[in-house]
Amino acid sequence: MPELFTVAPPHLALQTLLDHLPREVHTETIATASALDRVLAESPIAAGPLPSFARSTMDGYAVRAADTFGATESLPAYLTVIGESPMGRAPTIELRSGQALIIHTGGMLPIGADAVVQIERTQTSTATEIEVMRAVAPGENVLQIGEDVKPGDQLLPIGHRLRPQDLGGLMAMGITRVVVAQRPRVGVLATGDEVIDPQADPQPGQVRDVNTDTISGIIDRAGGIPQSGGIIRDNFDALYAAAKRMIDQSEALVLSAGSSVSVRDMTSDVIEKLGKPGVLVHGVSIKPGKPTILAVCDGKPVFGLPGNPVSAMVVGDLFITPTLWHMQGCDRPPVQHTVKARLSHNIASVPGRVDYIQVKLIERDGEWWAEPVFGKSNLIYTLVKSDGMMIIPIDANGVQAGEIVDVKMF
Amino acid sequence: MPELFTVAPPHLALQTLLDHLPREVHTETIATASALDRVLAESPIAAGPLPSFARSTMDGYAVRAADTFGATESLPAYLTVIGESPMGRAPTIELRSGQALIIHTGGMLPIGADAVVQIERTQTSTATEIEVMRAVAPGENVLQIGEDVKPGDQLLPIGHRLRPQDLGGLMAMGITRVVVAQRPRVGVLATGDEVIDPQADPQPGQVRDVNTDTISGIIDRAGGIPQSGGIIRDNFDALYAAAKRMIDQSEALVLSAGSSVSVRDMTSDVIEKLGKPGVLVHGVSIKPGKPTILAVCDGKPVFGLPGNPVSAMVVGDLFITPTLWHMQGCDRPPVQHTVKARLSHNIASVPGRVDYIQVKLIERDGEWWAEPVFGKSNLIYTLVKSDGMMIIPIDANGVQAGEIVDVKMF
Repeated sequence: MPELFTVAPPHLALQTLLDHLPREVHTETIATASALDRVLAESPIAAGPLPSFARSTMDGYAVRAADTFGATESLPAYLTVIGESPMGRAPTIELRSGQALIIHTGGMLPIGADAVVQIERTQTSTATEIEVMRAVAPGENVLQIGEDVKPGDQLLPIGHRLRPQDLGGLMAMGITRVVVAQRPRVGVLATGDEVIDPQADPQPGQVRDVNTDTISGIIDRAGGIPQSGGIIRDNFDALYAAAKRMIDQSEALVLSAGSSVSVRDMTSDVIEKLGKPGVLVHGVSIKPGKPTILAVCDGKPVFGLPGNPVSAMVVGDLFITPTLWHMQGCDRPPVQHTVKARLSHNIASVPGRVDYIQVKLIERDGEWWAEPVFGKSNLIYTLVKSDGMMIIPIDANGVQAGEIVDVKMF
Repeated sequence: MPELFTVAPPHLALQTLLDHLPREVHTETIATASALDRVLAESPIAAGPLPSFARSTMDGYAVRAADTFGATESLPAYLTVIGESPMGRAPTIELRSGQALIIHTGGMLPIGADAVVQIERTQTSTATEIEVMRAVAPGENVLQIGEDVKPGDQLLPIGHRLRPQDLGGLMAMGITRVVVAQRPRVGVLATGDEVIDPQADPQPGQVRDVNTDTISGIIDRAGGIPQSGGIIRDNFDALYAAAKRMIDQSEALVLSAGSSVSVRDMTSDVIEKLGKPGVLVHGVSIKPGKPTILAVCDGKPVFGLPGNPVSAMVVGDLFITPTLWHMQGCDRPPVQHTVKARLSHNIASVPGRVDYIQVKLIERDGEWWAEPVFGKSNLIYTLVKSDGMMIIPIDANGVQAGEIVDVKMF
């Protein structure tokens, strides 16, 4: 078992993989309206100011602020109402000293006005006259030209993942198309003479394919496009042919490759043949997931996963997800929600290894408790029954019952 | 301003809305492979056991455990190797006392065997004989029939949102189609005489529509399907016609309706005319977002939003998002990632009102600081520049600089 001596700590394993990937991000131009959660590959620049005219933030009267100075409830300022600022058009009238113009939230200030008096601070004295009962300062209740955005502003940085308000912000500037990173297509191959299509009826000795859909879900959540290449027999030529076909039509490849030593060695040989530099890491100091293979073949990342679903989740979290965001140039990938909980059982761990423990969250006396879901990593339903994973860091000896731990929610 | 006296606390406002919605969830049957993040509307039941045969969890030898009792390195047990368990097929051979069968991870145990000895615990003594250097207990290194799932088990509960491993778990049982809640279609209408399509060039007094895409993003993230009905003039008949058309072809409706008093009143009248019981809440004790309207019209929720984007985000978080998950029957909607940070400035607040403060997270001396992004709620770029929102609860007077706060990340 030579890999015992070569297992890499997970952060170094990931860094090694990323260091061997090309820096270039594949881009495409798409409609801003469809760009939710996509990663910007070019930084949009403001062509003009926002707002492009001085707007009221209140219902009230556009005025000259100086006309209201000193106004109080007992000694109001009297102003003549000369009309109304129409919504969506520039007022045609110019405001002079002693005058007020009815204005609505979002309405444009007329020439001559520099502030808005809220309607609640006024009283109508005659049909064309109001009493202003509080002074306003110049600029009060007004959005100035360029107060939100100035011409030439970088609106959002490259590498930013677009959120709902970012779509609105781009639309506000008339930017209806954006240059974003392409979603990386990721080939997924399941292997194993015992693995059959989930549609089929298993004969004795056969099991349905669990990993293709689990891994596809992980890829989907990391912004990638999973592409299944089906189930491949444990045979070098068959696996190489399928791997070659899938990597040629994808930007990355995941081989869910079974846990037996012979299958792992075959997977490693297949990956070596796919391109240079080939296998970079064979064995990572994590549990479960130790026999993981990380490779780069002709600029594309390739992941060799132990064939069990729990390892797939761990390797997905540690390697596949950050690599896919990296390929999209994303500087701040989404973070999974994490819950603080009290651990229900002692958990032992070996220093020098990162342990992932599946847990269920139970509410007890108004507090969250993390209860480990024990089970062999070949059991998919230990994962289904879990709410999240607790991570024991590489230098820890274990965690005592009653300690507060972070649970990364699925 | 009669609404000053009727503003509802946000949790009561939401409960009132949900209480008036029909309990029934609209369902559809879809491929499990496409069901990521969908909510189960029927609970899948296990037709058979998983695994359906006793499987090895190791590479090694299938044995009778009793044959290994007392075996040690100095006094190994000698067993005759009678063949190999083929992957994906039942071994045709029956194991007798004193015999061992080569088996791989995932391989099926032969009749007569009840345990697996790891290959690392054996040595080959002759071509057909091995030395077993450690005893195994019955069942050791074996997944028993039904150890993962028993026939008749409820695999996942109704209301569960499907995660990557759940798709795998369903596939393992041959459940390739699932009954899930339909994604609610949500009509979105922007209103305002000053609002124009983002493609168009604004004239003085005009602004591009920001809210349609911001709200659509919120709907999308909550599992809904946004359907834009365009921009409607501030005119009762036009707004009513558009609202009627959109609600007829959707399961919910959002009106982004402008902040001026007259427009708010018109929106409320339009909603009243859409169906019974009509407006349930007009005014919520939140800032921003106070003039929010919550209604149910003929079984469909209707949201009247103040026309500014910051309010849209707050109302989205408090009302639209939980309502859409509720309509999908989801008992545990996804939770946004929350970061603990130290507040950089004193923030005042009025008791009796929930305040949402947009903040930027800054790392300073290895610690996160939450820096409020001040700005009028009409400014979309205060939202774009923010990383999340900090919520000041209804009974608080404010938060002091230096206090630790929770920031709900966008």
